[in-house]
Amino acid sequence: MTLADRVRYADFHSRIMSAEDAAALIPAGGNVGMSGFTGAGYPKAIPQALARRIEAERAAGRPFRVSVWTGASTAPELDGALAQVDGIEMRLPFQSDPVCRDKINTGQMHFSDMHLSHVAQHAWFGFLGRLDVAVVEVLGILPDGRLIPSTAVGNNKTWLDLADKVILEVNTQVPEQMDGMHDIYYGTAVPPHRKPIPMTQPHERIGEPYLRVDPAKVVAVVATHQGDRNTRFAAPDAVSNQIAGHIIDFLQHEVRQGRLPRDLLPLQSGVGNVANAVLAGLLTGPFENLTGFTEVLQDGMLELIKSGKMVSASATAISLSSAALADFHANIDFYRERILLRPQEISNHPELVRRLGIIAMNAMIEADIYGNVNSTHLMGSSMMNGIGGSGDFARNSYLSFFVTPSVAKGGAISCIVPMCSHVDHTEHDVQILVTEQGLADLRGLSPRQRAQVIIDRCAHPDFRPLLQDYFDRAQRAGGQHTPHILGEALSWHQRCLATGSMRP
Amino acid sequence: MTLADRVRYADFHSRIMSAEDAAALIPAGGNVGMSGFTGAGYPKAIPQALARRIEAERAAGRPFRVSVWTGASTAPELDGALAQVDGIEMRLPFQSDPVCRDKINTGQMHFSDMHLSHVAQHAWFGFLGRLDVAVVEVLGILPDGRLIPSTAVGNNKTWLDLADKVILEVNTQVPEQMDGMHDIYYGTAVPPHRKPIPMTQPHERIGEPYLRVDPAKVVAVVATHQGDRNTRFAAPDAVSNQIAGHIIDFLQHEVRQGRLPRDLLPLQSGVGNVANAVLAGLLTGPFENLTGFTEVLQDGMLELIKSGKMVSASATAISLSSAALADFHANIDFYRERILLRPQEISNHPELVRRLGIIAMNAMIEADIYGNVNSTHLMGSSMMNGIGGSGDFARNSYLSFFVTPSVAKGGAISCIVPMCSHVDHTEHDVQILVTEQGLADLRGLSPRQRAQVIIDRCAHPDFRPLLQDYFDRAQRAGGQHTPHILGEALSWHQRCLATGSMRP
Repeated sequence: MTLADRVRYADFHSRIMSAEDAAALIPAGGNVGMSGFTGAGYPKAIPQALARRIEAERAAGRPFRVSVWTGASTAPELDGALAQVDGIEMRLPFQSDPVCRDKINTGQMHFSDMHLSHVAQHAWFGFLGRLDVAVVEVLGILPDGRLIPSTAVGNNKTWLDLADKVILEVNTQVPEQMDGMHDIYYGTAVPPHRKPIPMTQPHERIGEPYLRVDPAKVVAVVATHQGDRNTRFAAPDAVSNQIAGHIIDFLQHEVRQGRLPRDLLPLQSGVGNVANAVLAGLLTGPFENLTGFTEVLQDGMLELIKSGKMVSASATAISLSSAALADFHANIDFYRERILLRPQEISNHPELVRRLGIIAMNAMIEADIYGNVNSTHLMGSSMMNGIGGSGDFARNSYLSFFVTPSVAKGGAISCIVPMCSHVDHTEHDVQILVTEQGLADLRGLSPRQRAQVIIDRCAHPDFRPLLQDYFDRAQRAGGQHTPHILGEALSWHQRCLATGSMRP
Repeated sequence: MTLADRVRYADFHSRIMSAEDAAALIPAGGNVGMSGFTGAGYPKAIPQALARRIEAERAAGRPFRVSVWTGASTAPELDGALAQVDGIEMRLPFQSDPVCRDKINTGQMHFSDMHLSHVAQHAWFGFLGRLDVAVVEVLGILPDGRLIPSTAVGNNKTWLDLADKVILEVNTQVPEQMDGMHDIYYGTAVPPHRKPIPMTQPHERIGEPYLRVDPAKVVAVVATHQGDRNTRFAAPDAVSNQIAGHIIDFLQHEVRQGRLPRDLLPLQSGVGNVANAVLAGLLTGPFENLTGFTEVLQDGMLELIKSGKMVSASATAISLSSAALADFHANIDFYRERILLRPQEISNHPELVRRLGIIAMNAMIEADIYGNVNSTHLMGSSMMNGIGGSGDFARNSYLSFFVTPSVAKGGAISCIVPMCSHVDHTEHDVQILVTEQGLADLRGLSPRQRAQVIIDRCAHPDFRPLLQDYFDRAQRAGGQHTPHILGEALSWHQRCLATGSMRP
């Protein structure tokens, strides 16, 4: 497989160049829209070349930074490399890189944490400023100049449409057989010209398999042959399996009550080990003909498809462990019939999430006794990764689960607290909380009713009496709709900052 | 106008009865779905009769309560009367009654505060339990049994469809000429059977003018001749006018920048004096051919229509002062061509709010320096009214404004605080904050950038140095993404609870 096999648009051959030469075309101080979603489909060579250029320029007394917009998280070659050289002024809408996180939390980098369904439209509306250049990984270029997307679609359509200049990174490591696995919808518009999105089934094709780009804007084509960051999943542990068990029992109960169809509704699953365990639990569960409508397809969902339990999945990215990736490559013709990768404005679109009636399952950092959820901040101030698509799904879903082990840091931290130190999902958007201790069904309850259910069902036994004590005393303290003792509400977090533990 | 003129379905004549007899048909302990949205279109006679029955039963040693579901807020005859006799077990999804509020905040009544766009579907999904009876105000009944809606549509379609029994309150005070002003969409469904909602313009008709009901379920028809609670608006004061001025300047700026069409986009306006002042400001502003897509149509929007500045408005309720109501009645043929009242699942639907690109303007109780908004709770614990539709609009809008005077209680309370005591709209959903001091455009900013803009532009000068001091010290204290000092973050609220003032 040579680069020429992948770049079949003749006009682009003269624009093939090194990553260094391409990185030199990125304007200092500019806004750069890069591909990449959950460690998939991000450019690999160009960001590293850009980082080297930034470092050299700084050494020469000409420091500069760029602002980096992506789909979601990327990998050390992008976020890590650019953060390492202090090359990022503003990062949006999501990241999960340790170097990046450190720069954000030490005040050296700005981060705008956005709902993933908002990003493309805010760029279109002009709310984020001008997009100077797009740097997009593709798996190939057709003879007519259209682009075959790679392992993530993310915001690529929007970046290609909006950017003044486009740099393509052609990754010959991505199998050609992914051609046909994408569905790029070109029917979006800016108000007042919007139309209904014509999708009523999760696996319905509404667009075309290729990305369009104005060839005149393409200033560079760079070759890469390097795999995505592989996600490592821990084998489901006891805690994850207990959480998965509670969810599956609950889903069965809802089917029996007539509140869910027998084949459930399309599943969305957030990132991480717990989410993966829930999907693994469905492998041996009673449900058939499942469908997925999610943002990132990970090992657990791939296994469900392989097993036949899940008939199809829609996502914006595919992010696998090396073992799952080998299976994906070996059986790619099978998977291509069952997987569609779409722009994230479609995979996460409120209109579609509500219409299709998604069952949303997302991880959280902590919940408070009244059902507010913190998905992003450690101890109120430090950013973990970002809200990602959790709000797109939770707000508009049919059922919204938030899951976490009941304790963290070996039991030092309770994930159920008197008051969240930061709120990403309000009481209005949280229906069901699950820990290994149990499941709290909050639908239709008042805050005081929720508190008792959450304390009884979800809190760890070590923290349960402390939460009950807080709740009891708060009910004697003041306003009784959402009883709080404000001087104590955040004291668990304060104690943790002071001592490393929420335990008294 | 006799009742017979209004009840033209012959079979119902035998079911005409007194409010007392109808109230006796409501099952003790049941769930009752009542009409009513923002003090419009609520049943008047039956809830008062029910309250008398509850009081009598309690006196006889047979206490009972009901759970009351509505569209949104009602009036003293409904929420006030039932709360006064401790007759409400659970209230949802919104209220603004002083007696009701007192019962909620003293722990004597449960309240489930919901997004208004979620209510109908959660009832359909079975998440709220069985609906025993619907009590719905209508202006008349057609010869074929269909119902002519009154001044609010709210959740009436859903209550009529779902309830085991239906009680109709026919209000002969509502002018017959409102017939034709409603658009009831019967195309909704439960997943997986949902289709796109076929609306692309705010004033587009997608349904039919009448409500359907299974005549066999109608157990009582009761006559009323009593007007809605009239909303009193204060004449716009200096503070409201300054807020309105900032918003109008900003909208003009956005038009000049090409980020808004010259005729703007459909306007949503929350309830209250400030919202009304903004609309009044548009009366003399530079914009023409405005449209409204909102939940409640109040005086300000009616005046915009009358003036010709606004060509049409869509809402779920019409709630006017007595002066505006007289004008509405006098010119009802004019207004009927320009106003459509729809079910609240349509007026507030995320799909439509996003598609149409609404400019959302909602009031708030407080915002924190990072752009989180509290719309519901006083000092973290006491419920004011509820979130209403503010989240439906803010999350999905094109532009989302939150407005408040910079101080409350004669300057004792700052409406800009270090940390919100409750969060209803997260940093991800808040674009623009406005006080009489100025306007903070938060689009695309990081939390630290937002803090400086909010302190500089929105805080009252008396509190500005205190906020700056907190922000400066928090930036030296710990995590730098959203700098906080947790032991101080809620201290302003604690001080206010202790002393009645946030001032040190």
